[in-house]
Amino acid sequence: MKKLMTAAAVMAMFAAPAFAAGDAEAGKAKSAVCAACHGADGISTMDIYPNLAGQKAAYLVSQLKAFKAGERNNPIMAPMAMPLSDQDMEDLAAYYAGL
Amino acid sequence: MKKLMTAAAVMAMFAAPAFAAGDAEAGKAKSAVCAACHGADGISTMDIYPNLAGQKAAYLVSQLKAFKAGERNNPIMAPMAMPLSDQDMEDLAAYYAGL
Repeated sequence: MKKLMTAAAVMAMFAAPAFAAGDAEAGKAKSAVCAACHGADGISTMDIYPNLAGQKAAYLVSQLKAFKAGERNNPIMAPMAMPLSDQDMEDLAAYYAGL
Repeated sequence: MKKLMTAAAVMAMFAAPAFAAGDAEAGKAKSAVCAACHGADGISTMDIYPNLAGQKAAYLVSQLKAFKAGERNNPIMAPMAMPLSDQDMEDLAAYYAGL
């Protein structure tokens, strides 16, 4: 019984996580629209917009979700986040976190 | 008349700006409480908290003001921002932007 539980625990570790990991290459392709304000390399072109390069991936995902849900109010970011799927957000976050 | 206007324009350029510039050294002294989540060097200790090192100063100030005003809702940051003066915010922003 103990072995069975261990096996089940090991299998659970390899099961799909609660959210899919981001794909930085896919994120790069999706980042074109972000570049206007956040810079082609994730370094913002204006002092009022945040740099995204090297930012924590989980933080980036949480903020994109907050913009989409209207929990973080921002008239520029709300329509940007609206069409993004969870996977899009993970991909973008993986891309910017890796810069 | 043209010379007078030019002189006035030049004087206006040297007048006090709309907000005081931040003092990074003063900001460093005020940053101790921030370090628990955002890291001693502005690199966050946890993936859910943002890095602040190298972030745009004006963006940092705008977000601290938004937390204080309740325009950006965050149960952790609201009480952190509440006691900060505009000068404190400028100092902290100057410190983190320079890391």
